[in-house]
Amino acid sequence: MKPIKVGLLGLGTVGTGVVRIVENHQDDLKNQIGSAIEIEKIVVSNVNKARNISVAASKLTDDAWEVIRHPEIDVIIEVMGGTTATKEYIVEALKLGKHVVTANKDLMALYGGELLEIAQQHGSDIYYEASVAGGIPILRTLVDGFSSDRITKIMGIVNGTTNYILTKMTQEGASYADVLKEAQQLGYAEADPTSDVEGLDAARKMVILARLGFHTSVDLQDVSVQGISNVTKEDIQYAKRLGYQLKLLGIAQCDENQISVSVQPTMVKNSHPIASVNGVFNAVLVTGEAVGETMFYGAGAGELPTATSVVADLVAVSKNMKLGISGKRINSAFKQTVLKTDDQISSKYFLLLEVADRAGVLAQITQELAKYEISLESVLQQANPSSNTAEIIVITHDASKAAIQSLLDRFKGMDVIHQVKSVYRVEG
Amino acid sequence: MKPIKVGLLGLGTVGTGVVRIVENHQDDLKNQIGSAIEIEKIVVSNVNKARNISVAASKLTDDAWEVIRHPEIDVIIEVMGGTTATKEYIVEALKLGKHVVTANKDLMALYGGELLEIAQQHGSDIYYEASVAGGIPILRTLVDGFSSDRITKIMGIVNGTTNYILTKMTQEGASYADVLKEAQQLGYAEADPTSDVEGLDAARKMVILARLGFHTSVDLQDVSVQGISNVTKEDIQYAKRLGYQLKLLGIAQCDENQISVSVQPTMVKNSHPIASVNGVFNAVLVTGEAVGETMFYGAGAGELPTATSVVADLVAVSKNMKLGISGKRINSAFKQTVLKTDDQISSKYFLLLEVADRAGVLAQITQELAKYEISLESVLQQANPSSNTAEIIVITHDASKAAIQSLLDRFKGMDVIHQVKSVYRVEG
Repeated sequence: MKPIKVGLLGLGTVGTGVVRIVENHQDDLKNQIGSAIEIEKIVVSNVNKARNISVAASKLTDDAWEVIRHPEIDVIIEVMGGTTATKEYIVEALKLGKHVVTANKDLMALYGGELLEIAQQHGSDIYYEASVAGGIPILRTLVDGFSSDRITKIMGIVNGTTNYILTKMTQEGASYADVLKEAQQLGYAEADPTSDVEGLDAARKMVILARLGFHTSVDLQDVSVQGISNVTKEDIQYAKRLGYQLKLLGIAQCDENQISVSVQPTMVKNSHPIASVNGVFNAVLVTGEAVGETMFYGAGAGELPTATSVVADLVAVSKNMKLGISGKRINSAFKQTVLKTDDQISSKYFLLLEVADRAGVLAQITQELAKYEISLESVLQQANPSSNTAEIIVITHDASKAAIQSLLDRFKGMDVIHQVKSVYRVEG
Repeated sequence: MKPIKVGLLGLGTVGTGVVRIVENHQDDLKNQIGSAIEIEKIVVSNVNKARNISVAASKLTDDAWEVIRHPEIDVIIEVMGGTTATKEYIVEALKLGKHVVTANKDLMALYGGELLEIAQQHGSDIYYEASVAGGIPILRTLVDGFSSDRITKIMGIVNGTTNYILTKMTQEGASYADVLKEAQQLGYAEADPTSDVEGLDAARKMVILARLGFHTSVDLQDVSVQGISNVTKEDIQYAKRLGYQLKLLGIAQCDENQISVSVQPTMVKNSHPIASVNGVFNAVLVTGEAVGETMFYGAGAGELPTATSVVADLVAVSKNMKLGISGKRINSAFKQTVLKTDDQISSKYFLLLEVADRAGVLAQITQELAKYEISLESVLQQANPSSNTAEIIVITHDASKAAIQSLLDRFKGMDVIHQVKSVYRVEG
């Protein structure tokens, strides 16, 4: 049987993992596909650099176009990152009828719809399981496992860096800045951590999940995003005291075809299965109308988990080639995206207020809540005699995002409220 | 487009769910498949019985063969249960080139290999996702999601009835007999609960999981099975005190192609993700060499979750028909089954002994452990002055099943040990 020939773009940690897995699992892969897999060419920026892996020099090249246009290469695996040149490479590969496997969430979040369309036009496959929650096969689960159900909610911890930071802050009572520094030293956070800590990475993944789960073409600009850089030690301590864990959650909801997608730090009740997902682990909770709550848990990143997902996609693409069904994945984005407005998005909220410590303040505040029809689940007041202030914590019942926003605007005009220290969504 | 025509065997709770889902999701299903789905005929034992669902009388029949041989029916969905007549129906359907979706774990555990072979010979598909962990798409995850990894361990809570019973015993301190009675009244346990409580149902599911995960043809008689009917209140209380939950776990392991599969009540450390899976929920933890630990959690049974899995398989089978790739699933049982012997199976163990309450007994016991090279993780001794006895709890480090068996045999010959009250495997 003719082997399946692969061109690999990128030989960083994930690329190295791909080479290792393909080498170590030759027999298993051949048994599943019916053909051997050969990595024919690898694109690197410097062919002379010393590497952790021995690769024949003849396979290395710094010319991506040579690999994209190589007549014998069937599948392009893209693990180099970036969205500009990379997009050009992938578009050209798909147009040439080559199949593409990518781990690039930025690319798929930005251009996924366009790339899927080009692939379909040219009978090519594009698979991207590794772009979300590295070691968890969540995308194929959404497409195949939930094909007969209606998914109403996808909620996930989809960024390992921020989950590591929040877990450490919770377990050690440490500050955000200290834990971030430690995470950077350990290589869990990048020198410029913005994309992770401001929630952008999670937002990109939620876009990919929402598109597949809800069959729509939701875009990155449709996501409401808030990161963790303003989370304080105090917030985490209050969460703990009240029986919650503070997690950066991506939440996508779909009711009667109206969608909302957001990423924000959220208080999650301890009894909720997602509350115990700690460290760099990821988890995605999918609620189906019929199936109820299901959860998928595993390593979100790392060389081997991500490379394993990439090679699983390579197996799927190779099987499709052998079966002659490449590019025949039925396009699932068949619904128009209608976004919910802020008065249609509701959840419980946690509010931490610093107020003047005098009689009647709590009554004033609860009156304001009543005006906006926000009802209370619990209230906690704690005096701080040294500064003549008090802290009030409110956990509301379900309230609309719009009502909470109006309430917060109103609070700004109230003398007795010195500041709104924190506002978090609450789950469970 | 010509619709896909389905013959449904059985109209109990799952069958009713299938009819409802196919009706309610017509548009979504058509969008995914490119053809409508029509349930053409339904086999019931009594066509005149009153039902919860309105079905045209012309669709009902009590003659299964009429449906199996119906020339226009493309897919047979089997949700009637049983393994004798049912097997004949399915074999005939496959031979006629019809595709089969079944939720029947007993059938698949007993005859899965044979049925898959017949299907392959006749270009037919047989899908059986709903046979294991109803609402969790675990079988397709094992086949597709882990195609590039080597699975070393599959551990699961795959029986909802026993998990419900153990959860209740833990939360309420109730006895096995009392909770079983309550579960029977609530419909969570059958009038004859043997198959669930003695671990047979879980064993069948573990056979199906092990076959797919390890690419072998492991059989039901290869599984070591122990149920929960001997679990006492006291065992559960000790587990709680020591920071464990007692769970009925299916554990399948594969090292260097040597396999062991077992089902037994197991002490699971509280910090382990599977320890917090409670009530009728199921969870399957899959460890991949590269991916590490992943967990899949959801409803294990129930009309709608199970029916959803069945219809997801129907979607997969229908897509295969449209793509012209029916019966082309590459057979994954390509490895010979080599079972581990008892001296190759190791884990930690929990032992609860009733001993004579006098000096030197603990020393005697620990000497015996040392003889069999079993080392200790912890020991707890507690006197019971009223009977002049004491209880000793031992948690061992990893020890082979054979060594533990020899130790228990030795204990029988020791006067100071009145009885070995409990022996459990320990995880985490």
